[in-house]
Amino acid sequence: MTLPLGYRYASIYAGIRKARQDDLALIVSDAPASAAGVFTRNLVQAAPVRLCRENLRVSGGRARAILVNAGNANCATRTGDRVALATSFAAAKLLKASAEQILPASTGVIGVELDPKLITRALPDLVRKLAPDRFRDVANAILTTDLKPKTAFADLSVGGGVVRIAGMTKGSGMIQPRMATTLGFLVTDAAIAPRDLKPILAAATERSYNRLSVDGDTSTNDTVVLLANGASGLKPNAGERVMFREVLAWLMEDLAEQIARDGEGAAKEITIHVSGARTEDAAVQIARTIANSPLVKTAIAGSDPNWGRILSAAGNAGVAFDPSKVDIFLQGLRVCENGLAADFDESALSQKLDAPSCLIRFAIQGKGKGEARFWTCDFTKRYIEINASYRT
Amino acid sequence: MTLPLGYRYASIYAGIRKARQDDLALIVSDAPASAAGVFTRNLVQAAPVRLCRENLRVSGGRARAILVNAGNANCATRTGDRVALATSFAAAKLLKASAEQILPASTGVIGVELDPKLITRALPDLVRKLAPDRFRDVANAILTTDLKPKTAFADLSVGGGVVRIAGMTKGSGMIQPRMATTLGFLVTDAAIAPRDLKPILAAATERSYNRLSVDGDTSTNDTVVLLANGASGLKPNAGERVMFREVLAWLMEDLAEQIARDGEGAAKEITIHVSGARTEDAAVQIARTIANSPLVKTAIAGSDPNWGRILSAAGNAGVAFDPSKVDIFLQGLRVCENGLAADFDESALSQKLDAPSCLIRFAIQGKGKGEARFWTCDFTKRYIEINASYRT
Repeated sequence: MTLPLGYRYASIYAGIRKARQDDLALIVSDAPASAAGVFTRNLVQAAPVRLCRENLRVSGGRARAILVNAGNANCATRTGDRVALATSFAAAKLLKASAEQILPASTGVIGVELDPKLITRALPDLVRKLAPDRFRDVANAILTTDLKPKTAFADLSVGGGVVRIAGMTKGSGMIQPRMATTLGFLVTDAAIAPRDLKPILAAATERSYNRLSVDGDTSTNDTVVLLANGASGLKPNAGERVMFREVLAWLMEDLAEQIARDGEGAAKEITIHVSGARTEDAAVQIARTIANSPLVKTAIAGSDPNWGRILSAAGNAGVAFDPSKVDIFLQGLRVCENGLAADFDESALSQKLDAPSCLIRFAIQGKGKGEARFWTCDFTKRYIEINASYRT
Repeated sequence: MTLPLGYRYASIYAGIRKARQDDLALIVSDAPASAAGVFTRNLVQAAPVRLCRENLRVSGGRARAILVNAGNANCATRTGDRVALATSFAAAKLLKASAEQILPASTGVIGVELDPKLITRALPDLVRKLAPDRFRDVANAILTTDLKPKTAFADLSVGGGVVRIAGMTKGSGMIQPRMATTLGFLVTDAAIAPRDLKPILAAATERSYNRLSVDGDTSTNDTVVLLANGASGLKPNAGERVMFREVLAWLMEDLAEQIARDGEGAAKEITIHVSGARTEDAAVQIARTIANSPLVKTAIAGSDPNWGRILSAAGNAGVAFDPSKVDIFLQGLRVCENGLAADFDESALSQKLDAPSCLIRFAIQGKGKGEARFWTCDFTKRYIEINASYRT
């Protein structure tokens, strides 16, 4: 798979986090790219989230680079805005770009001052390291408690040729994006105007990152950015842009699923499929409520086919459905029929639930067309261990 | 403390749960009592919840007895309604009461058929055991994964004498009542008409059980019932009924706090106090969102003064406030001032957080008058252990 043309990448250890692992990275488009972003809906928003949004507004959706650090969220600190501004400005100077074309992003601990010198000192070396093949270095540098880097790639035929999309993301904890996860960066060499890019990213995010929850907490720093620099020389027409949106959504679903699989402490990925709800929104709401139930997540951790907890969780979704019309399937086996216990081999199913992927199907019989998939992970002792000691 | 006059209690082991521990109980008022109930808002409602609500409607808020079992929720089963009806009917016959004056309640596993014969066979012995001093036996019999029985008592001067209130409850897991917890039974010997009793119970529940969450899951069986049999011969007037409501709320807050303290796997009780919100509802919503954040609950488990998670959780409450006007206190120590890190001794505070009770104060400066207390508990490995193996 070829990476999108016209981008360079670099990462470096700037000393922001204690562990000696790259914590500062750049994604640079050789030419100004169309850019769109979706951001956290948390009322408390980190300084880089505010500046990133502002820069996209001022530049009319044009960007040269994404400047990202891990190890410090640059959120709820005295100097946050100044740090975001100063470091973006320093990067702009080195890249000979205007300041509003640098999109900042941060992830890490909240409420600890971030020393801008750590970043400005490391920037010249970082810029020198920029190379077209260092995509994976950046995917590694943005991780926090993630165990694995998360990337996805796609090609799409457009007119006479092919455009490429590449994405990277990080997740792990404080994950219930609703509109973006902690960090997700997508680059393409298709030529798409900013006004077309924005709805494409919004629609693809709605179907992917917005259907993901690790622990029900929405972060202060959630940011997904899509850059489209046109380096392929190909400009999708209206019909092709619909295809582009579908491929992008598919790629982002893949990234969201990777986040679920690598959720903090997770031993199992859980995919929840709801069908027969009145609307798609209702299906999402039922799936989200099942996904956020600690009782469902611990039952899956214990390979316990405890469908009563799934039915009870769905009943709390605030969405109308007839419980006596519900069938529930675990790993393809029917465990609940018409809202009542189905006849199934409990020990055989328990074994099937030991698999690293678990599928919960919640099927409401009848005429409802609302359907949705949602991703989460099980809830294990390891989650408690990680989060009872993350900061101290 | 004298128990309310005119009530008798009994419990027995009927074989509903495997562990040989009483699992069937009766609370009987010698004369028909005024009765009010609040029930789960879960769309999926157990058979005894539906029958209890129906009986209160048909009887016009009069009841002779509460018939309760633990070990089986009698929910999402083929025969649920028949079982609830048949067992209430059998109890009514033995107590020489009309069937609609028996209020049924169940707690335990969902989706497993409950054999009514276990109950009807045990009922004659259960009725024979009825005695005025067996209140605590019943408080023990209704427990499931609870470690401790939960009771509270109060006296109140009315006119020429004293009326008494006694309450018992169970909790542990699947707890976020919104209007009632798993089970709560309150008896008083005051004379209060059914039409006055209902709003009194609703108001007291709103301030107590509705501000409690162990794991954010609302059960299918939540039931709180208040009986008022008038055996004291004293009838509170309108002003005294306001006092009665306040004392009842105080007593129910005590019970709610006991549930938080004994939350599944909990090592620490957490009280969250929010002030300065625009309205009381907004304060409750902020407190509830903090209480349900696994990241906050695990930080408290680890004695980690990670106030950034508290601020971030509050930002997800869907309630408007200015983060730069927020002070956060842990165990009385200010850890966040104007939305930023305050200067505090982290290791000293971490030691204070090792205490079995933790107080989080979230104070929004300004003119907002909305204030609320909310109870929850920390999130430990033990919760995972209990819930990964509850059923199998």
